[in-house]
Amino acid sequence: MDIIKPRTLSGFMELLPGKQIQFERMAQILRTTYASYGFAPLDTPIIEDAQILLAKGGGETEKQIYRFQKGDSDLALRFDLTVPLAKYVALHANELAFPFRRFQISKVYRGERAQRGRFREFYQADIDIIGDGKLDILNEAEIPAIIYKVFKGFGLSRFQIRVNNRKILNGFYAMNELAEKSGDIMRSVDKLDKIGAEKVRAILVETCGLSEAQAEEILKFIAIRGTNAEVLAALEGYAGRNEIFDAGLAELKAVTSNLAAFGVPEENFAVDLTIARGLDYYTGTVYETTLLDHPEIGSVCSGGRYDDLAGYYTEKKLPGVGISIGLTRLFYVLDEQKLLNPELPTAPADALVLPMGSEPGSAIALAEALRSEGLRVQLYGEQKKFKQKMAYADKLGVPFAVLLGEDEIAAGKCSVKNMRTGEQITVTPAEAAAHIKETLSANDGPVILE
Amino acid sequence: MDIIKPRTLSGFMELLPGKQIQFERMAQILRTTYASYGFAPLDTPIIEDAQILLAKGGGETEKQIYRFQKGDSDLALRFDLTVPLAKYVALHANELAFPFRRFQISKVYRGERAQRGRFREFYQADIDIIGDGKLDILNEAEIPAIIYKVFKGFGLSRFQIRVNNRKILNGFYAMNELAEKSGDIMRSVDKLDKIGAEKVRAILVETCGLSEAQAEEILKFIAIRGTNAEVLAALEGYAGRNEIFDAGLAELKAVTSNLAAFGVPEENFAVDLTIARGLDYYTGTVYETTLLDHPEIGSVCSGGRYDDLAGYYTEKKLPGVGISIGLTRLFYVLDEQKLLNPELPTAPADALVLPMGSEPGSAIALAEALRSEGLRVQLYGEQKKFKQKMAYADKLGVPFAVLLGEDEIAAGKCSVKNMRTGEQITVTPAEAAAHIKETLSANDGPVILE
Repeated sequence: MDIIKPRTLSGFMELLPGKQIQFERMAQILRTTYASYGFAPLDTPIIEDAQILLAKGGGETEKQIYRFQKGDSDLALRFDLTVPLAKYVALHANELAFPFRRFQISKVYRGERAQRGRFREFYQADIDIIGDGKLDILNEAEIPAIIYKVFKGFGLSRFQIRVNNRKILNGFYAMNELAEKSGDIMRSVDKLDKIGAEKVRAILVETCGLSEAQAEEILKFIAIRGTNAEVLAALEGYAGRNEIFDAGLAELKAVTSNLAAFGVPEENFAVDLTIARGLDYYTGTVYETTLLDHPEIGSVCSGGRYDDLAGYYTEKKLPGVGISIGLTRLFYVLDEQKLLNPELPTAPADALVLPMGSEPGSAIALAEALRSEGLRVQLYGEQKKFKQKMAYADKLGVPFAVLLGEDEIAAGKCSVKNMRTGEQITVTPAEAAAHIKETLSANDGPVILE
Repeated sequence: MDIIKPRTLSGFMELLPGKQIQFERMAQILRTTYASYGFAPLDTPIIEDAQILLAKGGGETEKQIYRFQKGDSDLALRFDLTVPLAKYVALHANELAFPFRRFQISKVYRGERAQRGRFREFYQADIDIIGDGKLDILNEAEIPAIIYKVFKGFGLSRFQIRVNNRKILNGFYAMNELAEKSGDIMRSVDKLDKIGAEKVRAILVETCGLSEAQAEEILKFIAIRGTNAEVLAALEGYAGRNEIFDAGLAELKAVTSNLAAFGVPEENFAVDLTIARGLDYYTGTVYETTLLDHPEIGSVCSGGRYDDLAGYYTEKKLPGVGISIGLTRLFYVLDEQKLLNPELPTAPADALVLPMGSEPGSAIALAEALRSEGLRVQLYGEQKKFKQKMAYADKLGVPFAVLLGEDEIAAGKCSVKNMRTGEQITVTPAEAAAHIKETLSANDGPVILE
């Protein structure tokens, strides 16, 4: 038979078992945290009608999308989880209770140019809250509060959720008679971190057509820094001149005070007037999240408020607020930076039962007894020499080997070997389970070590 | 703005939130059961190189596959989880510990003709054990024992795992000088349940070219029925005439006796000589699983032993045994047949906290307190009238509403309303959490009611 050389496509993450378990651990924290806030799990198709996915159309999306024909159908793979959510909510509006809260942790597809750390298939972990007609400002604080919980759950503390409000920006531009240029200006200001103030000034003047004075006003504005109280106080100085600005400031103050009520410490969130988010559909609060010791990664979790989620699919006005974690990229970066906690076990089992005789009945019963105590237990069924069995346990990285020979069977016991310390004890199955669970829980720690 | 009518493609399952939670419950039982036997979670790309997916080529697969170009690449969506596993194991053989045990619960794609209950995107829930060169027969009993655990975990007891061994069939055909026709014969015999013995006889004679006597021998053979001991005894009558037959009989006896050792009661498994599995790559033990009260569904879980998993991708001989549950179809049928337990809550939250005042601080704190006790809690943040708040709780189907008015806040308490019984008690947050957990766990039951 001719052999076809096996390969995995470039830009597609495929993990070895140990890494996969580390990835699952992060995904599990996301699932349980999202669920604990009453978000419903949602699972939409990966393939959708291309017309629907591209309703908004244009730009990078259309170039990157995986689109193909099958029979007469014009199909495409989803490139985010927001467009399928908009479709879902429009399609099922009458059957959903609003506010509708959903989380989805699923793969999306973008045929980007392949490069290190860029993925064509990657997980997004999204939460959104969709209202019918109206949605209270409280939700705009709850969303980043949940993200705070997720990142703390990962073991991170050196992160900052940066918050702004596009109404403040739009209102400010209107004050300076730049309302029509606000889109261009926001896209330029968004580059501040990457290219610096002077280059932004040059773009504002040369590309956007602002006067030097206008550009100066904008740079002065986005240079406002300090504690959240200081930034809000500085913004008060602009109040009363534009309704949209004032509405945005009131929202930002509400979000800031509610974030504190949700228990998010000030060190983990900051009002930051440079945050605008390039996407057009955000209309109020916007978020970005940075790892303070790894600013080079950029935002690992972004989102915001949109007034009209599903306008392409329904006349209904469905305002919402949502946020998205680029999970595959985050995992890749954490792994690259060696931040994944190496102390956590990555074996698929807590214990490997090694029968020393050839009759499997006792070993089967022992493995079942350990499982009934909540352990993940593999029964080793191969007829190999003792040394090979132990080598397998080593390669698997299993924390405990449980040996069962004739002496142990006769005594109703088993020998539990701690693969890390080499320590071995001979005890009853119930004692073995208790010992293994106790040792594992003592070794428990965060997924990420900063 | 022009409205595009939202729709979900035909053949793609997209569930409402309550149904999705029922689906997740089944998936979670699969994940925890598979993991408890020491299987590693695996996640391979949905898109693969088309040449690799189609290495085996031919037949229905090629017609049904979603295949497309992106740039210069010839891509396809996986149509099962076995071919990607073969690729994975061949590609990473040096990094894996063998036996390699993995589970994968993921979507696969087949562009079948759309019809009711047939899906183009559907979940398979697979486990496989892959050996390097050799793999002990014990694994062939463990795999159906795990499936037994899964189905019992679902709440089912009226199911039967039917087991056979292709060596017995191949050996038997060889005894009757029909070895070269064994593939055709097995495919014909596989139809026995659907078309009956007389039509199978006709196919064997007219299409496969057997003599009447040979067809008679085959029908007599596959008519062997009875308890497992009776069937094995009847098979002993054929022993000693063909080596392959004898090897298969020894394997079947080992699997049968080990299944009992794994605690699978005889009512849930049966030696059944009519099981052959149409696919060519099975070489020994084969499995099918039927719901005894719903034989019309056919097999809901099938698999078997293969001697050479990854022969298209590597010179290494990698024998294995695996089984696959067609989860999407199983869920669809259970739902259609109204077998999903309607008593289990399907709301995304255990409790909905309803603040009666406009200041959210106390309600936020209460919700966090309930979450810290392990509950899934939604905080309702909208400024609505009491009646509308309760209507939302009703529509959401949430088991408990927790009301927080000024009186409760002053007393450090909250009012817990059981939405099913209407009963309401005013207690501390800790008492509320205990009460909710106790009531929910008393209502706990199986996912499926037979």
